[in-house]
Amino acid sequence: MIEAMPDIKDVRAAAQRVAPFIVRTPVLAGRGRLDDLVGAQLFFKCENFQRVGAFKFRGAMNAVLSLSDPELANGIATHSSGNHAAAVALAAKLKDARATVVMPEGSSAVKVEAVRGYGADVRFCKNSQQAREAALAQVVRDSGASFIHPYDDWRVICGQGTAALEFLAEVPQLDLLLTPVGGGGLLSGSAITTKAVSPHTRVIAVEPAGADDAFLSLQSGRIVPSIDPKTIADGLRTSLGVRNFEVIQEHVDGIVTVSETAIVEAMRLLWTRLKVIVEPSAAVPLAALLEHKLDVEGLRVGIILSGGNVDLDALPW
Amino acid sequence: MIEAMPDIKDVRAAAQRVAPFIVRTPVLAGRGRLDDLVGAQLFFKCENFQRVGAFKFRGAMNAVLSLSDPELANGIATHSSGNHAAAVALAAKLKDARATVVMPEGSSAVKVEAVRGYGADVRFCKNSQQAREAALAQVVRDSGASFIHPYDDWRVICGQGTAALEFLAEVPQLDLLLTPVGGGGLLSGSAITTKAVSPHTRVIAVEPAGADDAFLSLQSGRIVPSIDPKTIADGLRTSLGVRNFEVIQEHVDGIVTVSETAIVEAMRLLWTRLKVIVEPSAAVPLAALLEHKLDVEGLRVGIILSGGNVDLDALPW
Repeated sequence: MIEAMPDIKDVRAAAQRVAPFIVRTPVLAGRGRLDDLVGAQLFFKCENFQRVGAFKFRGAMNAVLSLSDPELANGIATHSSGNHAAAVALAAKLKDARATVVMPEGSSAVKVEAVRGYGADVRFCKNSQQAREAALAQVVRDSGASFIHPYDDWRVICGQGTAALEFLAEVPQLDLLLTPVGGGGLLSGSAITTKAVSPHTRVIAVEPAGADDAFLSLQSGRIVPSIDPKTIADGLRTSLGVRNFEVIQEHVDGIVTVSETAIVEAMRLLWTRLKVIVEPSAAVPLAALLEHKLDVEGLRVGIILSGGNVDLDALPW
Repeated sequence: MIEAMPDIKDVRAAAQRVAPFIVRTPVLAGRGRLDDLVGAQLFFKCENFQRVGAFKFRGAMNAVLSLSDPELANGIATHSSGNHAAAVALAAKLKDARATVVMPEGSSAVKVEAVRGYGADVRFCKNSQQAREAALAQVVRDSGASFIHPYDDWRVICGQGTAALEFLAEVPQLDLLLTPVGGGGLLSGSAITTKAVSPHTRVIAVEPAGADDAFLSLQSGRIVPSIDPKTIADGLRTSLGVRNFEVIQEHVDGIVTVSETAIVEAMRLLWTRLKVIVEPSAAVPLAALLEHKLDVEGLRVGIILSGGNVDLDALPW
């Protein structure tokens, strides 16, 4: 590895750093019919209530706050078509820094407007990993901006870990912590944190079967890239990062996959029973319980609801 | 009046009584773009996260817990097509009491199933106030069941007041507390509570212009019945109760009305910005701010989100 893996001290430092900027999101209990349905005691950490509507703000804010003043003066750059784009834009704005976000052509108008609404400059590129990276490299060369990767960055990983830190402080004695996994930012941050502050809590990631690269990577011991993923969970289509995979191999207890049908059913249940708006990616962990992919009978299960950014005019039911 | 108006001691007693049964619902801040939009600092008490998805459970539970064992043995009865029906059914179930709910023919299948899901017996009647009351009287005659009115009942009013009690304890120094008004249960409970624990906080109710009977009642000094109300906010179509009106005249600082367009816009904003599912009735207070019906510039404004029971397959946009 390029740098040593961070530990709980780094997550705690991140928590202190971001505290004045983030929302300390509430935990909702699944009491009543949602618990009965899966036979476990459920707790939901509502990162859909986080600023920009997703946990991504924690990592972006921690990364921005880790920059020196001269670095901030050169601005910040990233590539993302999703929640990380808005997160970096807002984090930069809060530190009066310029942000440039490379977004693929055809990104949803709502998301582009959100990023611009936070004052960031949007550069469009062709919709491929290569084109994204080339466009980003150009921005960095031209401006000297600091690049904040959506997940393969220790500052980002430590920032994401602060959600689990709050969660475990509020709900001790969790038997199981479930997160979705895409690039692995939330999962790796959660795993570093959980194994330090609540070692008996198993950390399991859930992934759409149509984008099962993390599942295959853990099984084969090397990063299997995500090629042509097919899932409604648009936040989980990316490949694992190198740093993320290192943490996953060391600290994560397992990865299970779920069907698209179960993801939509879980999303609808969270809307109707828990009364919260979650995006498909955030419903993926509950989907694993609906499909009985894990034996949770009688256990205390924590689920991080990763985000709530959806287009109300294009719902999957 | 039949009985003396309760005071804050009664609300505190209700709070203690219902504490083991209710959800102490979280308060969400409107920070960011929702606050900017209305120029005030907003706080939302999320009663949509309450059991059965609405504040109604507080009042029903307090009423049920106020019954003696012999009364409980004879069962509980009510009439309601909405959240009060489910609230009474669950409250009865938690005390192992039978519940009979009179519902108008044509009530939504989802709501009937919810009530039956809590183990209550459903009796259908024609869809008129007279038919409801006749069917209810029959149930009471046959079984000796205790009637719990949806709002015109001091036990219910004190129960509903516990939401404001929690709200003001968590967010002190509110300049303004806004609630919707239908029959007046939430409003009267909130007003008794607020005027006792935070006298400088103004209590204002908001009502759909298409169901403005409470507005007209306050203006004219006598209860104006709600005749043929036209509003999407189905929880707010009823007439004021006698006890509720007594409290409103004494303790409420004003009632303003809002358009249907503003209600739908407010509902959508709460879904997309706050990431919570609210029913149309719960969006009515925010609608007043969107329509500039109140001068809230720079103020700390508390809003009780009354409920979150909606049919996802029949959304108003």
